[in-house]
Amino acid sequence: MKESGIGSQKIIRRKGDGEFEYLPDELTVEEPLEIRIGDKPIATTMRTPGHDEELAAGFLLSEGIMRSRDQIASVSVSGDNRVVMELGDSVKLKLKSTERFGTISSSCGLCGKTSIDAIRQNFPPVRSNDIRIDLETLLSLPETLRKAQSDFARTGGIHAAGIFGVDGQLKIVREDIGRHNAVDKAIGRAFLDELLPLEKHLLLVSGRASFEIIQKALAAGIPILAAVSAPSSLAVELARDSNQTLIGFLRPPTFNVYTHIDRVILESA
Amino acid sequence: MKESGIGSQKIIRRKGDGEFEYLPDELTVEEPLEIRIGDKPIATTMRTPGHDEELAAGFLLSEGIMRSRDQIASVSVSGDNRVVMELGDSVKLKLKSTERFGTISSSCGLCGKTSIDAIRQNFPPVRSNDIRIDLETLLSLPETLRKAQSDFARTGGIHAAGIFGVDGQLKIVREDIGRHNAVDKAIGRAFLDELLPLEKHLLLVSGRASFEIIQKALAAGIPILAAVSAPSSLAVELARDSNQTLIGFLRPPTFNVYTHIDRVILESA
Repeated sequence: MKESGIGSQKIIRRKGDGEFEYLPDELTVEEPLEIRIGDKPIATTMRTPGHDEELAAGFLLSEGIMRSRDQIASVSVSGDNRVVMELGDSVKLKLKSTERFGTISSSCGLCGKTSIDAIRQNFPPVRSNDIRIDLETLLSLPETLRKAQSDFARTGGIHAAGIFGVDGQLKIVREDIGRHNAVDKAIGRAFLDELLPLEKHLLLVSGRASFEIIQKALAAGIPILAAVSAPSSLAVELARDSNQTLIGFLRPPTFNVYTHIDRVILESA
Repeated sequence: MKESGIGSQKIIRRKGDGEFEYLPDELTVEEPLEIRIGDKPIATTMRTPGHDEELAAGFLLSEGIMRSRDQIASVSVSGDNRVVMELGDSVKLKLKSTERFGTISSSCGLCGKTSIDAIRQNFPPVRSNDIRIDLETLLSLPETLRKAQSDFARTGGIHAAGIFGVDGQLKIVREDIGRHNAVDKAIGRAFLDELLPLEKHLLLVSGRASFEIIQKALAAGIPILAAVSAPSSLAVELARDSNQTLIGFLRPPTFNVYTHIDRVILESA
């Protein structure tokens, strides 16, 4: 059960013909996970069990707390719902950055611009490069992600995040009840494998693109983001400011491009 | 722009026929909101601007920090993105409860059961009562909610939460880019209006039902929850343990019932 992230139980279902049936149902498992650095609790998140070391690594990366793989001496699961990361002796943490919103007090107060400035302190814009994705490849991604998903079709309760090469090859796919967690797990895997920055890659998420999704992609150095649903206003602002291409409503044959269109080759081959 | 929670900008859209067009798009506005009690920052959340006092009230209620309307001396918006709540002179806060997950260290460690026990300290199960909803009324709710939504159809990026009487009458509807925020705004309105506990009401959410959604409904004393998408395993556990009826995949004519079926009248009239 813990392995697959799926639990089952009996439910009553009303069918399309109005009849009722009593049958087993599969549910996405949700459990709290505590992330610690040494003996210090950093955060607790509700997540689908599995790939917990990746979730912790991706979270600490995208919060700006960790920067490079060599800061980590070890990362291990402790019991069912705790991940402990041990640091190298010489590593000093920027733990204050987790409080970035709470401690901001500039003249403009708290606003989207402030949030972007706070992100900017940790993560510069992605580097300009010649990476482009062609139309057919872009349109193929949602189907590739769907085929790689195990749980989503069965429960409708799982988000997926996939990291692709710009040739359309799926490199990492992770699922979780929380959209942010799925992204943390995917970029956490890449972080632990020392693959960052992912300058030649694209991130596809099954749901919407919020500010925090863009932030996580930026932390991993990903230049192209695609979402099956809508982006928010602040997501668009951050992507524009971070030199990231943001694609929304990717539902072949249609999609929208919100920022930095130059990375999409719009003509068919 | 702030008023409606909608911003607009130019985007490039690929249409179904493969042609591209350059046109204005509407985006759901996302901005940070800081919630303060007096001069103490309690939390910051990314939300769609509007109904911020309700969001703060609903959040503080469902975290177990505030319990009754008369604890609040005043609640006011300070600048664009800050809500300040002032308390009555004699009110002592349970601020530690916001750290409930971080400080748990029982013999079983951190698990779903621990989370439910932590909730239970703040919120007893809903009282048993004779409230029931009939089939036709239940099936009518998603359409009622959809008609009351302003932004969702235009952007696809907004969640909705509706509080209904068991006669199907919509009492409060709130929208937000975050599902939790939409629920906080809806129950926050009821809290500020001294309508709690909502013992004769139902909460419908446009997305999935996670643990925290059930927790928020419980904080408001709501006995029946319905979600358009899937519940999680821990959501089902908490609802069962809290004497709440949980309905998922409410997509007429079909739906699932996960817990406490007795509050749904399954026979047509």
